[in-house]
Amino acid sequence: MNQVQPKQIETILDQLKYDSNGRVTVVVQDAANNEVLMVAHANREAIRQTVETGETHFWSRSRQKMWRKGETSGHVQRVREIRIDCDADVVLVKVEQVGGACHKGYRSCFFRQLRNGGWVLIAEKIFDPDKVY
Amino acid sequence: MNQVQPKQIETILDQLKYDSNGRVTVVVQDAANNEVLMVAHANREAIRQTVETGETHFWSRSRQKMWRKGETSGHVQRVREIRIDCDADVVLVKVEQVGGACHKGYRSCFFRQLRNGGWVLIAEKIFDPDKVY
Repeated sequence: MNQVQPKQIETILDQLKYDSNGRVTVVVQDAANNEVLMVAHANREAIRQTVETGETHFWSRSRQKMWRKGETSGHVQRVREIRIDCDADVVLVKVEQVGGACHKGYRSCFFRQLRNGGWVLIAEKIFDPDKVY
Repeated sequence: MNQVQPKQIETILDQLKYDSNGRVTVVVQDAANNEVLMVAHANREAIRQTVETGETHFWSRSRQKMWRKGETSGHVQRVREIRIDCDADVVLVKVEQVGGACHKGYRSCFFRQLRNGGWVLIAEKIFDPDKVY
């Protein structure tokens, strides 16, 4: 990630299109293999922290607060690249994922696939959520 | 994609968690290289059509109607794989993309990247939107 000057960060954040609740959608992708790890939400402050610290921050809709990914589990996401979509309301972050992105113990939150007429588990747990959270 | 029986499709759709407006978020990924092509929204009927026809369908929030990707442009998305996330409120669809996913003429909607303190164009147009839409 490039360093961003203080005067640049406001312009960067201004160019995003926040919804009526002040949020954008964030897609997190594994920089190593482009696997989609998770989809979450962020407000302006979470995007600012993500850019400035180089670790992903999100807005928790259930807890109504900002959180740093990995703050409890240690499974941080180091930012390698940030993109925005044509409407500027979705942010794509490519990361180096430490441990697993999913709070259920999987590397990726997308561990179920439509197969044989139902949703089928296609991944193995890489950690025990009870020991991490 | 596997064939889905009529009695299976309702169960498949029941297991998604729709928001208060009846929608899920859909991430579309290029099956060839895992590039994220676009992020859109779908209601139950759009997911049903996506599963049953093997081509992506979405819900347009601006037009308040379902649409089939490529219905105007011919740039359809042939479904190769469908996954859901741990919360079952995000659907990941891997597709074979015909033409470009982005209505602005790019292969992917994520054609801008944070570089040198600003959002920088990193892709080239592959079609002229004025000739396609």
